[in-house]
Amino acid sequence: MSALKFTISHIDTSTQARAGRITTPHGVFDTPAFMPVGTRASVKGLVPDLLAGTGAQIMLSNTYHLVLRPGADVVAAAGGLHKFMNWHKPILTDSGGFQVFSLASLRRIDEDGVTFSSHVDGQLIRFDPVSVIESENKLGADIIMVFDECSPWPVGFSEAKVAVERTIRWAGECRQAHQRPDDQALFAIVQGSMYPELRQYCLDRLVEMDFPGYAMGGLSVGEPPEKRKPIVDEFVPKLPQDKPRYLMGVGRPVDLVESVAAGIDMFDCVLPTRNGRNAYAFTTNGPMRLRNEKYKLDFTPIDEKCQCYCCRNFTRAYIRHLFLVNEMLGPILLSIHNIAFFQDFMREIRLAICENRLNSLIEQVKSVWEGQEIVADQNNKGNNNKTTQD
Amino acid sequence: MSALKFTISHIDTSTQARAGRITTPHGVFDTPAFMPVGTRASVKGLVPDLLAGTGAQIMLSNTYHLVLRPGADVVAAAGGLHKFMNWHKPILTDSGGFQVFSLASLRRIDEDGVTFSSHVDGQLIRFDPVSVIESENKLGADIIMVFDECSPWPVGFSEAKVAVERTIRWAGECRQAHQRPDDQALFAIVQGSMYPELRQYCLDRLVEMDFPGYAMGGLSVGEPPEKRKPIVDEFVPKLPQDKPRYLMGVGRPVDLVESVAAGIDMFDCVLPTRNGRNAYAFTTNGPMRLRNEKYKLDFTPIDEKCQCYCCRNFTRAYIRHLFLVNEMLGPILLSIHNIAFFQDFMREIRLAICENRLNSLIEQVKSVWEGQEIVADQNNKGNNNKTTQD
Repeated sequence: MSALKFTISHIDTSTQARAGRITTPHGVFDTPAFMPVGTRASVKGLVPDLLAGTGAQIMLSNTYHLVLRPGADVVAAAGGLHKFMNWHKPILTDSGGFQVFSLASLRRIDEDGVTFSSHVDGQLIRFDPVSVIESENKLGADIIMVFDECSPWPVGFSEAKVAVERTIRWAGECRQAHQRPDDQALFAIVQGSMYPELRQYCLDRLVEMDFPGYAMGGLSVGEPPEKRKPIVDEFVPKLPQDKPRYLMGVGRPVDLVESVAAGIDMFDCVLPTRNGRNAYAFTTNGPMRLRNEKYKLDFTPIDEKCQCYCCRNFTRAYIRHLFLVNEMLGPILLSIHNIAFFQDFMREIRLAICENRLNSLIEQVKSVWEGQEIVADQNNKGNNNKTTQD
Repeated sequence: MSALKFTISHIDTSTQARAGRITTPHGVFDTPAFMPVGTRASVKGLVPDLLAGTGAQIMLSNTYHLVLRPGADVVAAAGGLHKFMNWHKPILTDSGGFQVFSLASLRRIDEDGVTFSSHVDGQLIRFDPVSVIESENKLGADIIMVFDECSPWPVGFSEAKVAVERTIRWAGECRQAHQRPDDQALFAIVQGSMYPELRQYCLDRLVEMDFPGYAMGGLSVGEPPEKRKPIVDEFVPKLPQDKPRYLMGVGRPVDLVESVAAGIDMFDCVLPTRNGRNAYAFTTNGPMRLRNEKYKLDFTPIDEKCQCYCCRNFTRAYIRHLFLVNEMLGPILLSIHNIAFFQDFMREIRLAICENRLNSLIEQVKSVWEGQEIVADQNNKGNNNKTTQD
């Protein structure tokens, strides 16, 4: 019995985009899907009812952060992450591979794992494929990720090759260590930086191992989008057709829709929440910065087309006021709206796929978003979904 | 036609406590009532649905803060405070009397009003009875307060006497300036510090003017409780029996129930929200500090007897985790719980009045709360409901 069932209902006739549905032990989510980020078992500022009200069907949390605090054993004692945080829909946990290399003060990386100092209290911690999977088994997410070595950008070829070799070997060890394959689907992560031959090599080895799903990792880590797109366009179609494909850390509207066209089914990013906390709203007409004086007397909702809790109940003028006086309700309301925007956006993408018009949607999204500045831009901040600042 | 209807359903046989109900243009609230504080048109961190879910039937906002930002005209253009913040139950606005004397950098006080520098940007502002009532008329709360001079504690007799004279004269001017008596009930504020003869004089003059409700002001401004209680016990019963009586800024459980015994009908205080943001929970068994290590693996709700959104859905262990990792959901959940605790507490008080057993409830409340430290204690912070730190 498998932890995950993936059914593709339609493939766009002009692109590689697929519309489908993934069934997990905690319910179903439609694909392509956008996962809001709740690094520390909380999507910042949102009680679960309000999160569900945005249309989010699955959320992401981070093994690295949860192992440090409160500890995987605490979450296990609570009955797992779903019960601990009172979110009873699907959850995906990232493995912590990236965080170990980016947040922690790294002490030693060897063939078997990584020794590092916690960014919280300096405590010396060891992560290896067995210990990470053991933690993810305790957390109990529906989808869990292998422990990988995520190279920074830029990285030299030989260093990237060593990371790919480790990533492949660790993927096998993770697979073997996994104790709950019937209720947690383990996804592999394809590394290889911007080197096509390393990507191909890593992809081939991981596909041979036959995982229930595959992620593209090591992208959205600081490289310019024009470096990322060719990698996505070339290698995503080479992933197994019948398995979910997840592009980690990508979240700008144009990147989302273009990556869907290459065949990606799942995304995560901190953009909706991080930007929401900074008074930046995503709207169907492009970005809106709510501190702007021009909204002082604007008693219309953020987005007339949006049916989220924020847009149904509050005006631009009120939200502007909340930000100007530093009331936390401002960040809360814009986080709700932005997550709802991303969910609406994914629904629009799914519909366009089903109607074989994704290419025209791409043009439309580009006409709204290309050239727009996006605060907390993932290309300036590294892999946004993995920083401490979710 | 009056803006307010007050009906007393029962008076406790052994105390002066009254159980009743106040009808306003935006609905009804039961008395004795506790009003959560939303200084800047937001009860910190709570969307209105969650606030209503605590059982709160009326909330308080501050004219001083709203006049500074976003400005009374902005709120008026929104259609008033209820529409601006999407809270459609009763609202009371404080006049700003206290804030002008405590927060602002005071430039000049004269017989007609006060000139001060805004604590936000230093801008020179003039408040007088006419301008304050004009602002409160624009804000559109169901109950509005006169502009008074709130003496600090301690204050000399002659200084307190001058403040009382001004408070009385300004009350008359407020009354005359009030343009919306049919949908906003104007309450007078009795000043006089700890001087019984000044309290009596102020009370007599204000009662002669026949306001729809009366507040005791200038208490909970830093004086020890043993100084406050005799003033409340002596003068509250002298206020008109058939009018609502409001004790400003008082909120510790023992003070609430004892003041109800003296005949108070309405309270406001920042304690539930401010303490909630500091990991302090009010429970039927006394205080609970959620950062404590002993809750690490405690998967029970904050209070087994509580039916609030927080206690129905989250555990002590999870809330502790949220505070330890600085997730804003921690303050949000504890604010919800604490406000719900205060609403439950008022319901318990109302029931005890109706069953003529308030004195035994007082003893019970004392046995739980007397001697307990209350963080952000109002006696250490001045009149809590009026500071910038609500």
